Amino acid sequence: MPDSGPDPRVADLGFARLDVDRAARTGDPEVVYGAGKTPEQLVTILRTLHERHPDRAVLATRLSEEALATVPEALPEAVVDRVARAVTLGPLPAARGTVAILSAGTSDAPVAAEAALTIRVHGAGVDRIDDVGVAGLHRLLGVRDRLASADCLVVVAGMEGALPSVVGGLSGVPLVAVPTSVGYGASFGGVAALLGMLNSCAPGVTVVNIDNGYGAGVFAARVARNAAPRPDAS
Amino acid sequence: MPDSGPDPRVADLGFARLDVDRAARTGDPEVVYGAGKTPEQLVTILRTLHERHPDRAVLATRLSEEALATVPEALPEAVVDRVARAVTLGPLPAARGTVAILSAGTSDAPVAAEAALTIRVHGAGVDRIDDVGVAGLHRLLGVRDRLASADCLVVVAGMEGALPSVVGGLSGVPLVAVPTSVGYGASFGGVAALLGMLNSCAPGVTVVNIDNGYGAGVFAARVARNAAPRPDAS
Amino acid sequence: MPDSGPDPRVADLGFARLDVDRAARTGDPEVVYGAGKTPEQLVTILRTLHERHPDRAVLATRLSEEALATVPEALPEAVVDRVARAVTLGPLPAARGTVAILSAGTSDAPVAAEAALTIRVHGAGVDRIDDVGVAGLHRLLGVRDRLASADCLVVVAGMEGALPSVVGGLSGVPLVAVPTSVGYGASFGGVAALLGMLNSCAPGVTVVNIDNGYGAGVFAARVARNAAPRPDAS
Amino acid sequence: MPDSGPDPRVADLGFARLDVDRAARTGDPEVVYGAGKTPEQLVTILRTLHERHPDRAVLATRLSEEALATVPEALPEAVVDRVARAVTLGPLPAARGTVAILSAGTSDAPVAAEAALTIRVHGAGVDRIDDVGVAGLHRLLGVRDRLASADCLVVVAGMEGALPSVVGGLSGVPLVAVPTSVGYGASFGGVAALLGMLNSCAPGVTVVNIDNGYGAGVFAARVARNAAPRPDAS
Amino acid sequence: MPDSGPDPRVADLGFARLDVDRAARTGDPEVVYGAGKTPEQLVTILRTLHERHPDRAVLATRLSEEALATVPEALPEAVVDRVARAVTLGPLPAARGTVAILSAGTSDAPVAAEAALTIRVHGAGVDRIDDVGVAGLHRLLGVRDRLASADCLVVVAGMEGALPSVVGGLSGVPLVAVPTSVGYGASFGGVAALLGMLNSCAPGVTVVNIDNGYGAGVFAARVARNAAPRPDAS
Amino acid sequence: MPDSGPDPRVADLGFARLDVDRAARTGDPEVVYGAGKTPEQLVTILRTLHERHPDRAVLATRLSEEALATVPEALPEAVVDRVARAVTLGPLPAARGTVAILSAGTSDAPVAAEAALTIRVHGAGVDRIDDVGVAGLHRLLGVRDRLASADCLVVVAGMEGALPSVVGGLSGVPLVAVPTSVGYGASFGGVAALLGMLNSCAPGVTVVNIDNGYGAGVFAARVARNAAPRPDAS
Amino acid sequence: MPDSGPDPRVADLGFARLDVDRAARTGDPEVVYGAGKTPEQLVTILRTLHERHPDRAVLATRLSEEALATVPEALPEAVVDRVARAVTLGPLPAARGTVAILSAGTSDAPVAAEAALTIRVHGAGVDRIDDVGVAGLHRLLGVRDRLASADCLVVVAGMEGALPSVVGGLSGVPLVAVPTSVGYGASFGGVAALLGMLNSCAPGVTVVNIDNGYGAGVFAARVARNAAPRPDAS
Amino acid sequence: MPDSGPDPRVADLGFARLDVDRAARTGDPEVVYGAGKTPEQLVTILRTLHERHPDRAVLATRLSEEALATVPEALPEAVVDRVARAVTLGPLPAARGTVAILSAGTSDAPVAAEAALTIRVHGAGVDRIDDVGVAGLHRLLGVRDRLASADCLVVVAGMEGALPSVVGGLSGVPLVAVPTSVGYGASFGGVAALLGMLNSCAPGVTVVNIDNGYGAGVFAARVARNAAPRPDAS
Repeated sequence: MPDSGPDPRVADLGFARLDVDRAARTGDPEVVYGAGKTPEQLVTILRTLHERHPDRAVLATRLSEEALATVPEALPEAVVDRVARAVTLGPLPAARGTVAILSAGTSDAPVAAEAALTIRVHGAGVDRIDDVGVAGLHRLLGVRDRLASADCLVVVAGMEGALPSVVGGLSGVPLVAVPTSVGYGASFGGVAALLGMLNSCAPGVTVVNIDNGYGAGVFAARVARNAAPRPDAS
Repeated sequence: MPDSGPDPRVADLGFARLDVDRAARTGDPEVVYGAGKTPEQLVTILRTLHERHPDRAVLATRLSEEALATVPEALPEAVVDRVARAVTLGPLPAARGTVAILSAGTSDAPVAAEAALTIRVHGAGVDRIDDVGVAGLHRLLGVRDRLASADCLVVVAGMEGALPSVVGGLSGVPLVAVPTSVGYGASFGGVAALLGMLNSCAPGVTVVNIDNGYGAGVFAARVARNAAPRPDAS
Repeated sequence: MPDSGPDPRVADLGFARLDVDRAARTGDPEVVYGAGKTPEQLVTILRTLHERHPDRAVLATRLSEEALATVPEALPEAVVDRVARAVTLGPLPAARGTVAILSAGTSDAPVAAEAALTIRVHGAGVDRIDDVGVAGLHRLLGVRDRLASADCLVVVAGMEGALPSVVGGLSGVPLVAVPTSVGYGASFGGVAALLGMLNSCAPGVTVVNIDNGYGAGVFAARVARNAAPRPDAS
Repeated sequence: MPDSGPDPRVADLGFARLDVDRAARTGDPEVVYGAGKTPEQLVTILRTLHERHPDRAVLATRLSEEALATVPEALPEAVVDRVARAVTLGPLPAARGTVAILSAGTSDAPVAAEAALTIRVHGAGVDRIDDVGVAGLHRLLGVRDRLASADCLVVVAGMEGALPSVVGGLSGVPLVAVPTSVGYGASFGGVAALLGMLNSCAPGVTVVNIDNGYGAGVFAARVARNAAPRPDAS
Repeated sequence: MPDSGPDPRVADLGFARLDVDRAARTGDPEVVYGAGKTPEQLVTILRTLHERHPDRAVLATRLSEEALATVPEALPEAVVDRVARAVTLGPLPAARGTVAILSAGTSDAPVAAEAALTIRVHGAGVDRIDDVGVAGLHRLLGVRDRLASADCLVVVAGMEGALPSVVGGLSGVPLVAVPTSVGYGASFGGVAALLGMLNSCAPGVTVVNIDNGYGAGVFAARVARNAAPRPDAS
Repeated sequence: MPDSGPDPRVADLGFARLDVDRAARTGDPEVVYGAGKTPEQLVTILRTLHERHPDRAVLATRLSEEALATVPEALPEAVVDRVARAVTLGPLPAARGTVAILSAGTSDAPVAAEAALTIRVHGAGVDRIDDVGVAGLHRLLGVRDRLASADCLVVVAGMEGALPSVVGGLSGVPLVAVPTSVGYGASFGGVAALLGMLNSCAPGVTVVNIDNGYGAGVFAARVARNAAPRPDAS
Repeated sequence: MPDSGPDPRVADLGFARLDVDRAARTGDPEVVYGAGKTPEQLVTILRTLHERHPDRAVLATRLSEEALATVPEALPEAVVDRVARAVTLGPLPAARGTVAILSAGTSDAPVAAEAALTIRVHGAGVDRIDDVGVAGLHRLLGVRDRLASADCLVVVAGMEGALPSVVGGLSGVPLVAVPTSVGYGASFGGVAALLGMLNSCAPGVTVVNIDNGYGAGVFAARVARNAAPRPDAS
Repeated sequence: MPDSGPDPRVADLGFARLDVDRAARTGDPEVVYGAGKTPEQLVTILRTLHERHPDRAVLATRLSEEALATVPEALPEAVVDRVARAVTLGPLPAARGTVAILSAGTSDAPVAAEAALTIRVHGAGVDRIDDVGVAGLHRLLGVRDRLASADCLVVVAGMEGALPSVVGGLSGVPLVAVPTSVGYGASFGGVAALLGMLNSCAPGVTVVNIDNGYGAGVFAARVARNAAPRPDAS
């Protein structure tokens, strides 16, 4: 049976065939989704990608407790973010543009942290604004100038997911909403927040999957980078 | 086969057996749910109830276009509320206590109107505050004193149903949320708003069925009446 | 990047920014949602809030087994309610008004207990009426006088959630229904009871989220306090 | 291609192949599901079945308005039940045993009527008990002796579907619950009632599909007939 | 606050108030739902009920592994059914009438066993017919005479839940279908089987909740007992 | 802005860009999905495709009543199948291999007819076996030889969707199941049948979307053509 | 009862209170959601907004057939877009930046058109790329250069909603996906496409509500405007 | 009570009655579903089936970790496939025809492996094509010749499930899609992928249950065997 031959855009590690061409197609760094992978597999993948691109950071997300403990032992130069449950290897890029990340409550911290690290790895800067849930509006109204000075907003909330609607009414900056699985009973693991955000009465709110801080971060970094003046344009 | 005999608490109209004992049990007036009833049936029921209790109002809700046109012809003393799609017959009671009704948008008007008329028929007063959706907070923040002076709040909203969470963070007055079927796509006929309200991050928010302005009105009137000083207590 | 500065209405503990202004806005005490917090975090939060308001109780709900054991060791003056899985710190307020809490079965006890403690902390009195499920009506019919003498009813039930409809037909006192996750198969973790209560044929029934004894308690206490004669009014 | 040849247990009408063997297998009469069939097709089917079995009734259910008007013109000896939207042709059998049919509200009448006619056609007797919804318990408590004297109960209810639980707690007679699509909002076309009945806290409640008065009737008639003393056994 | 006083129809054990009046109302024995109860509580309840009614069996269902091991140590005369995960205490009644229990596959055995034991405790006899799934029709067609000689059928099946439709086409005996949670993926814990049974094309199929062998057993035993000639009638 | 230029594989009609390359890629004829297209658009599309490929049939499915009447007037050589609500234009290919189409009831006829016409247009032969629902097994058992002689089976059923499980237990021929939207109440427009088929206990059953006779037909024709001996291979 | 007084940021038309302050807060033009409004109301709103801001376009979306015919008669200078079912009044702004709009099939045209018009009204340019569904990849691969030269992508698709995943793998430009309600059976009015897009395997895909071309357009225009070099910056 | 006697088509093991007649009816080998069975039961079943048919392979799927370790100890000649979590006993048949199995990502490997082993046991050959997800199209486009040379395609994908639509547009070979439970948040355990595949815009895609590699394998092997020239036909 004919085979299509080895593909230079793929790194075959035996247990996985890495797409190492994404940077060429999309301009983004390499990212490893850690769920379901053993610490050994993660170390191999991170090392392989780092060797191919030693000048830019590789990101691994959704690490297990075991992987968070093991990976830095095998790769001492790796940097661990315990709240985001993620690891980076290699130098972070300079930041172009700023993404403001708003979160509603303390329980939303892991998703906000994953978004923040993803944004930094993808080349934009971050302004964190935490604990500004809609049941205490004074906290949100006190940061309106920080909203206005951002190039993109990432708004993280669980429960009823109302925060993006309120923020979207205060600002015209592009806004990505991230529903989290925080809640109980009829929150259905984040579905209530997801539906709330999809039905926002504020126009121009877009949404990613439940707990998907990574996806929101990739998108927001792209928007912020493009909105910032090019360094070589000055 | 033995029968339980005619019951003085029931008026048998042939096509329906009316429970005319509710006032004795619960202190509330008689209400007719109009959906699925012919105009002729509605006229008969309204007339029967009015003759039994000529000194207090009877309410009919969810009337069809045909019934809204026909009932006043047969019962000229009936008062029609076209927005609420409802009719009353007999004098409205004096108002004890006040319920503030907030609505998010113009499309929520029919549900807010049904709640308002129900509250008046059940013996409390009403303060309507319309078009205070969360995407334009300044409108809501401008009415905080009206919230504080109410004995109960009814908050009507469709789409993401965020308004009760914001109001509940501004005020400690008992709050009943009413989701409406306003919206499209993933609003699922009001389910998104219902879930949002059930998962409100503001404590002390209770919820009724989608578009159920009547149920919210009954509840809020009971709360407001009890909270007001008894006229005979002075 | 400009910051909005330290806010006297917020206590920043590093891992969380406490909203210590809620009492001023809504008249309610401070409450800590314990799920997902470590015993150390809970002790710090409880102690901080208690120091700010030593004259009134602080409530912590949804404690883990570990927290239920650890918190009283660190805070010997804390009072533990094992059935409610909750802790209070500081003196309970005097009770104004009475909330009757009805529960359908033994399995509903934790939710009823959470509602009861919440009501006491929020300044109203409690009358517990347990094991009055609709499959044994004689037990419910025997307590009609207790229903009538309450200022608000909290009705807790799982499975088909029929109890609020029956109680709502017996009494005109404002009624808050709490669905519980008791059941199996097509109960879907409380959804069957939630839908049953939202569709109650008794008018004036309002509903909170599944297992949300806390939310029902906050609401009911507000209603009962307002319905009671003001002590300073005499 | 080989064919299985004409089958004496099947009557081929061109547009449908009737199973005329069911009586031999199950002891039940012939029934035609009218939805989606033209009046002409219904007349042909009813006439064919009647000619095969002139000594016992044929039943057609779920007739359209047009069919309810047309069929009796073509078949003058047919008997129309407008509430049940059904027609019978041929003599009803003598009744053995009794099924009590309880319904919660006026809107449940079509489903209760379909069940009643089905039971009579299948050879049992009927005791109708209408408008005994759980929000007015006194009506239900007044008919306990009629429940006790029945051989099977059919309980019809929409909205929250609580009636079977209450009835099942009052009586040990076999009980079939029928959810109806009466309701709005989060009743989801009868799903709330269906779930309520499946999760009934009263043991021994069985359920049929939403609005399926016919299915409940077939089942209840079989139970009642078997429970009655055989006429030839005396 | 007035109390309704001790009720002779209730046994108060401190942790629960037992309804010991059910036999008088419905003619059925006492049954304990074991899920969520400690072995100590179960022993106390079983002993109390047995002392009140030493002449008839008490049934406890849904026992944990721990309870299945502990209860017989404390109550040596108890009889354990490991497949049904249930225990009986006291003599089983004589059997009147017969219920045939059909199950589709080996994985349905626990639900079928719970139904069988329930039927025996409630005074009817049992004929077990296992492993007759519809993908091997010859096994089912071989037992048609056993179907015909039963007074009621209980049909247990998971996955697509097709067995009741096929059995219902072969027999006119009253049929109760029990969906089980056997399956994976889009079976959604038994919902696929539940929907299949509710939509059965065979008339006269009734359904109970997922895995509810107990409920089906109570119902079927009532039907079978009533269908059998009374022993004292001969 | 650069454009990719006119593509010979696409026919641009102004209101649509037809993919006229599918035959080259997949070997299948051109098919037009008629829902939402005006009769004029359908005539234009059919004529365009027919002119490109006059030697083979073009198929249009899901036609409205208006289109079924109008298209043959504009294209007299078109052949209308009223049951399938479809039209063909051009000569049908010779049949290679045979697909047996089984349907459960009369109401499934439109879906079975759409599958049958699709199969013929895609070059395979059809054997129709109607009204073989599982509640009357004798009809199905009488056609086992026709099942065995087919190269592929298409099994069409609504309600509980049990027919594929029974057929799949009788035969090892590849089987495609088509759920139909026939049913009411908890059939949810075909979802019950869809879930039943996805969870079939017979191995080797595959499923298409609800009412998707066309998709099943395309698949089955491909299987049957490949299974038949090539005419040019002899 | 105290009122908050007339608010200059609100235009009170009697039947609605317009938020005319949005431009100040968010920089976006005024938009009227036409669903549920009478043609007369639409004319009044459009005229009012146009008089306040004669130098920039006002947009009305989701117009009924009646409104599409009536509005231009009353406002002859209005421009109608029949495919988008929308109307503009006033001059369109100059375009800064470009949004490429991709659609999968002909049926997605109304949603794509609504997005396109919204983008133009909000100050960005549009490049339409239609009929590039994933079942004919050659059409999509032929426009890769147009993807690369855009500042933001809007990808519109119904059915399985796969197009955004494929496009997101080809390009690193920020991508907003719009699910449409095109489909039948288990597409559930666009839910299948919505879930597909939320679960896209391509990182950086964000989603709006079903058929919400307007929301996607607002967001994409903001992104594109910010990404383009400021005209005053040269 | 009459019994139908021992059936030679059934092997009664006490804990289960094996259908050992399937090969005669459907031509397929014996397969054991391992979930929920103890290692001892599995060994007994495998040994029994192997003794009856020593010349062909028996397959056991869905084995627990414990069973994967225990079975080979008791049956040393058994062959373990750890990725597929399956075991075979006895010689694999010669391969007739080829099934190409495509998988989207590394996490889909267990389902693809189960399909591959099932196909081999059922007598067809396998061509594995892994890691060809739609977000990196170049990998898929490079294997078009392998698609064309297969007799059937099995396409395995989680997340949005888009791969079958893209493959179905590239090839006319019969295609069976397998959704996997890979994903998080709104993937709902594979429901998003399942819906995506059911709504595929490529015609002729059929679907099996979530993670059902076994069912897809049985079906595909039947198709491939029939499509291949019979060895005895040459």
